[in-house]
This record gives sequence, structure tokens and C-alpha cells, in this order.
Amino acid sequence: MNSNLFSVDYFKEALHLQIKKNEDVHTPIQTMNSYYHTVISAIIQDRINKNFELIRRIRNLDTAYNEVKAEIKQQQQVQH
Amino acid sequence: MNSNLFSVDYFKEALHLQIKKNEDVHTPIQTMNSYYHTVISAIIQDRINKNFELIRRIRNLDTAYNEVKAEIKQQQQVQH
Repeated sequence: MNSNLFSVDYFKEALHLQIKKNEDVHTPIQTMNSYYHTVISAIIQDRINKNFELIRRIRNLDTAYNEVKAEIKQQQQVQH
Repeated sequence: MNSNLFSVDYFKEALHLQIKKNEDVHTPIQTMNSYYHTVISAIIQDRINKNFELIRRIRNLDTAYNEVKAEIKQQQQVQH
């Protein structure tokens, strides 16, 4: 795991891991949506109470989601 | 639509609508996760730049998600 907690790279790694773990039962997008919900739910329950930091984490997760989604799309185009 | 934009009730109504729209192709949870991602992605792209207001909306969506999930669970228990 990337030690830079809640960075874009940290979330990308986590997303890839989840996709791999669930590849037999869910599509990558289903897995990513589920992870996205779980993580944001946890982030906003977190008692850090610094709105700026919460938004930073959420934005990083969102960026990671979009980057991984773009990677998947590209891979699928190569395969077809 | 409830006129109280981005309230818990507003999001609950939207979630129910999405679930109904997609009931032939996706499970309620898949639909909710997809909606959750789409809405949060939009909320954080929004140029309102008031972190407090962003967090309020995200928390309301999260609360609505949990309430609708609990409703679905209860309905499923009644059916079985």
C-alpha cells in the first residue's frame, strides 16, 4: 500500500485491488461504485471535523475512480 | 420532487426513483451505488467552493442511502 494515505495513488491501488478481488462476481464498475460508497461513507463519519481535509480525500478518491475507469476502458478497446 | 434541494428526503425520493427505473437490470444496491457515485462526483465538481455546504449535501445523501437500504432490507424480510 502506498504510504501517502488518501492520495490519488493510494485510492487507485485500493480500487485495483478491489476489482481483482471481485472479478468473478462483479463488473469493475460495480466494484468501484461499491468501494466508492463505502469509503466516502467512512470518510464523512470520520470525526476529524476538518471539512477541507474531508473534501480533499473525497476529491482524490473521485480522481482515482475516473483514472481507473479510463484505464479499464482503454484495456477493453485493446481487447476488441 | 421535494423542493428542499439536497435534503435527506430529496435524496431518498431520487434513490427510490432510480431503483424503480433500473429494477429490471440492476439490484437496488447496484443502482444506489451508481447513483451515489454520480451525485457525489457532481457535488464535488460544483464550483460553490463552500466546503461546509458540500459536506452537508454528501452527508444527506449518505443518510438517505442508509435509510433506503434499511427499508429494502425490511421489505425483503417481509417477503421471505
